[in-house]
Amino acid sequence: MKSGRRDRRVGAPADSFGDRHANERATATDVITSRDNRWLKEFRVALRGGVPTTTGAVGVEGVRLVEEALSSRCKVEAVLFSNSGERWRDRFAPFVGRPDVGFPVLQTTDRLFEGIADTEHPQGVAALVVPRASTLDDTATAPEACAPLLVVLAGVQDPGNVGTIVRTAAAFGATGVLTAATGHSGTASPYAPKALRASAGAALHLPVVVGMPLGILLTQLKLKGIATVASCVHQQTAESGATGQVLAPWRVQWCEPVALLVGNEGAGLPEDVVHSADVRIHIPMAKQVESLNAGAAAAVVLYEAYRQRTSR
Amino acid sequence: MKSGRRDRRVGAPADSFGDRHANERATATDVITSRDNRWLKEFRVALRGGVPTTTGAVGVEGVRLVEEALSSRCKVEAVLFSNSGERWRDRFAPFVGRPDVGFPVLQTTDRLFEGIADTEHPQGVAALVVPRASTLDDTATAPEACAPLLVVLAGVQDPGNVGTIVRTAAAFGATGVLTAATGHSGTASPYAPKALRASAGAALHLPVVVGMPLGILLTQLKLKGIATVASCVHQQTAESGATGQVLAPWRVQWCEPVALLVGNEGAGLPEDVVHSADVRIHIPMAKQVESLNAGAAAAVVLYEAYRQRTSR
Repeated sequence: MKSGRRDRRVGAPADSFGDRHANERATATDVITSRDNRWLKEFRVALRGGVPTTTGAVGVEGVRLVEEALSSRCKVEAVLFSNSGERWRDRFAPFVGRPDVGFPVLQTTDRLFEGIADTEHPQGVAALVVPRASTLDDTATAPEACAPLLVVLAGVQDPGNVGTIVRTAAAFGATGVLTAATGHSGTASPYAPKALRASAGAALHLPVVVGMPLGILLTQLKLKGIATVASCVHQQTAESGATGQVLAPWRVQWCEPVALLVGNEGAGLPEDVVHSADVRIHIPMAKQVESLNAGAAAAVVLYEAYRQRTSR
Repeated sequence: MKSGRRDRRVGAPADSFGDRHANERATATDVITSRDNRWLKEFRVALRGGVPTTTGAVGVEGVRLVEEALSSRCKVEAVLFSNSGERWRDRFAPFVGRPDVGFPVLQTTDRLFEGIADTEHPQGVAALVVPRASTLDDTATAPEACAPLLVVLAGVQDPGNVGTIVRTAAAFGATGVLTAATGHSGTASPYAPKALRASAGAALHLPVVVGMPLGILLTQLKLKGIATVASCVHQQTAESGATGQVLAPWRVQWCEPVALLVGNEGAGLPEDVVHSADVRIHIPMAKQVESLNAGAAAAVVLYEAYRQRTSR
């Protein structure tokens, strides 16, 4: 646990990061005490800034999420402990305790850690991790005898909702998640710190494709024989000019290859997307209530799919 | 829309608030420009502070929530517009445009409004509203031929989760929500600003009982013949020492009088509560996934209940 081992780790892996960090590695001290340290800057960009670093790494923070990152098949660029976060180091021993660990394990002061963290009461553990690049084919690859079950987020703006839906998708056996922008609004990144927290790290395990143009995506799904199911927020939208009837989730055949389309929290899916979908669904609910939270609605539909798929 | 009408409204209702506000009412100017104004202080406590005022009023903010508050049967103490929030006034005409409106309709500057608001980009409309005091009997009163369906939140700490569950409960025909503290953790107030936002105001419509001791509540439910269903986060918890088997949500008879017990986000329900419940349920999910978000899990279970109740 003491400095000798840490020094070795911080300085060791020559292939773990770009050349511009060579200097920090060569001169790395046991505890980073300067806020201008380039590693801290990278962590600050990824966590507090909420955007990927120039190398495409995203930041995860907290014991649970760092564990998820280390156990995922994603490339880890660095792990950072604060002085008081050191108490968690034993828990990470299987990942960071080996001499051949392929990334630097850094340490800084509690105060500097607070300056890079995105949470109010940080646990003092963070990591920079590069999400796997997935393709549409990856998201449509079903293990075992299962048919693909894709979740397409089209204009879901709240990172918390995006994260909750990714977590639910993983729990109910979805094969992948795709995010797309609509004419009206983009979809929050599943890798934003708030979304990663809400997904409990599921975005690092599940195949995820970010920011595909919606039109191209829908065409590709058609070519692949994957049926599209439009989730309609309002009963009226679902019915207006629709070419087919609007079904309750339990009327849909979820055992076929299928993509669930989830729209914006307020506006729902664009009208043309609703019209061109193979199936339109609406969750029946009490009369005086307008709608469900986007995460709750997706959970209900994905549960229904899972129920049908596992009770075959 | 202009000052004459507003002046009358600000000064008029002698019975709308306590005596300590008599002075403000008497000298009320058209636009409140002092941050020391007592009404602004009340709004600040309720919104930014997130706690009820001394009269028990909670704060709601934003067009949609203020509409919900005004259309609920709760007592409204005041409505406040910022200068730029004035553009919404027409929308509230049915509630605040009548000469006999029973509460002051106030106006302040954008800057002072920002100082009392709990959101980053306030819409400039807020209200102080006193939630209805409900009893256990109110939450167990089912309209029409329906059996009571109660939701008991025992140790749900995140206000967003509490709000989402209240919204979902309303959507799926629950007759009431009760919050209780466990030995380990309290439940966030459904009336905290973040919870009210997440519930889309449903907490002002649905009968809600806050902070009942859990033991007394469970005894009362037993006396009333309302079956308790413990929602178990982890399969193991559900099975450990349980006196009956653990069911998937679709194996439960939801058409009977029933109370769904929802526990803490991380720890779940206390073990003795799980043991003493009439039924234990666990939502089946993919193997490598640990759990669902609390709001998503409650949505799945309440959807199942609603599905059974409406398709009888």
